[in-house]
Amino acid sequence: MDEPRFELFSYWRTSATYRVRVALNLKGLQAKEHNINLDAGEQRSEAFLKINPMAAIPALIDRAPGQPSTPITQSQALLEFLDEIHPEPPLLPADPHGRARVRSLVAMLAADTHPLITPRIRKYLTTTAGFDDAAWRAWQIQWFTTGLQALEQRLINEPETGRFCHGDALTMADICLASIIAVARVFKIEVPDIPTVTRIMADCEKLEAFAKADPRKQVGAPAA
Amino acid sequence: MDEPRFELFSYWRTSATYRVRVALNLKGLQAKEHNINLDAGEQRSEAFLKINPMAAIPALIDRAPGQPSTPITQSQALLEFLDEIHPEPPLLPADPHGRARVRSLVAMLAADTHPLITPRIRKYLTTTAGFDDAAWRAWQIQWFTTGLQALEQRLINEPETGRFCHGDALTMADICLASIIAVARVFKIEVPDIPTVTRIMADCEKLEAFAKADPRKQVGAPAA
Repeated sequence: MDEPRFELFSYWRTSATYRVRVALNLKGLQAKEHNINLDAGEQRSEAFLKINPMAAIPALIDRAPGQPSTPITQSQALLEFLDEIHPEPPLLPADPHGRARVRSLVAMLAADTHPLITPRIRKYLTTTAGFDDAAWRAWQIQWFTTGLQALEQRLINEPETGRFCHGDALTMADICLASIIAVARVFKIEVPDIPTVTRIMADCEKLEAFAKADPRKQVGAPAA
Repeated sequence: MDEPRFELFSYWRTSATYRVRVALNLKGLQAKEHNINLDAGEQRSEAFLKINPMAAIPALIDRAPGQPSTPITQSQALLEFLDEIHPEPPLLPADPHGRARVRSLVAMLAADTHPLITPRIRKYLTTTAGFDDAAWRAWQIQWFTTGLQALEQRLINEPETGRFCHGDALTMADICLASIIAVARVFKIEVPDIPTVTRIMADCEKLEAFAKADPRKQVGAPAA
């Protein structure tokens, strides 16, 4: 059997890697995964810092002949990349205003929410800033709640919302929505008053591309 | 005189609004600015939450006839939008790997760095978490340094870097680089060991589109 075109540096529970897994699944693309154990700090190893000096996953390397060997990092960039090299099914609507709305919903979660609860922030707050477990948990809950409730307000008030975040076709906004809910579950955090978000998550999970990407089903996940 | 096509909700010193101002300037587009005083908490007013439930700027409304009235928020989405509706000069390279690299550099700053030092984080850390001024400043320095030094590592090690972040043509990565340096200056933070970042910033500032967007020149900025 041929080796997959892509190598993906990943970890079972991360929200950002989940997004890339769903996109690969939707587009029928294969990647060989390399486990970077965030709980053991492997993202800060000398070897991994050569792949991503930001010490974060995911990172994707394209092994197709003639392609640049620079690893592609950052989930938003990866979703756009996969959509450009393999346009079906599309992860963005066709019109510029629709694309802008979807990218804005993506950034509410991938930029304004998720980076606040990553391992580097946990490390700083629980060491330098002296947060105990309860303070760290309150911090996590604060930003999951802020991001998801703001998303809910947009979804219920903006006429573009349909079966999914933008109309009735799946987009990268749905992938990001699902990625935040999936990781909130890992941390056993439930955000109240987000019925539209919850409805869309339920519809996403009916799709095999999402179900297969569930953090709890990945290599390295703890037994249930 | 005709009214400008766009309305931009902004504040003099914000990094994310700076990005949009530079892009508008590069493309020769006009926007009528509405000042949202972040230091007075105006982003959390009932009126503004209707424009952006995430309580953040920038937000752009397109007043062109027949366009959706939903405000466009999030600087990454806005840069992509302006590039799609007004492609010259382009803010992204043409090839998918190049576009992915530029978007990844953008996200290192716009997603992994800037959201950590926004007003909502300052409010939480200095009230709920009890940070004093020195602890808040140490936090700001930590994340400006992490983001900009990781960017430097990529710029010096990756062969795609040229006069600007990606080759010799300006992209949205340069706009984001400049936006972080511009706001670091406002907070009087200097990050050491970033010679490539500093060189690119100097080249950006030779361009009128960047010089005109300097936070210190905007309405509402304190006298020098």
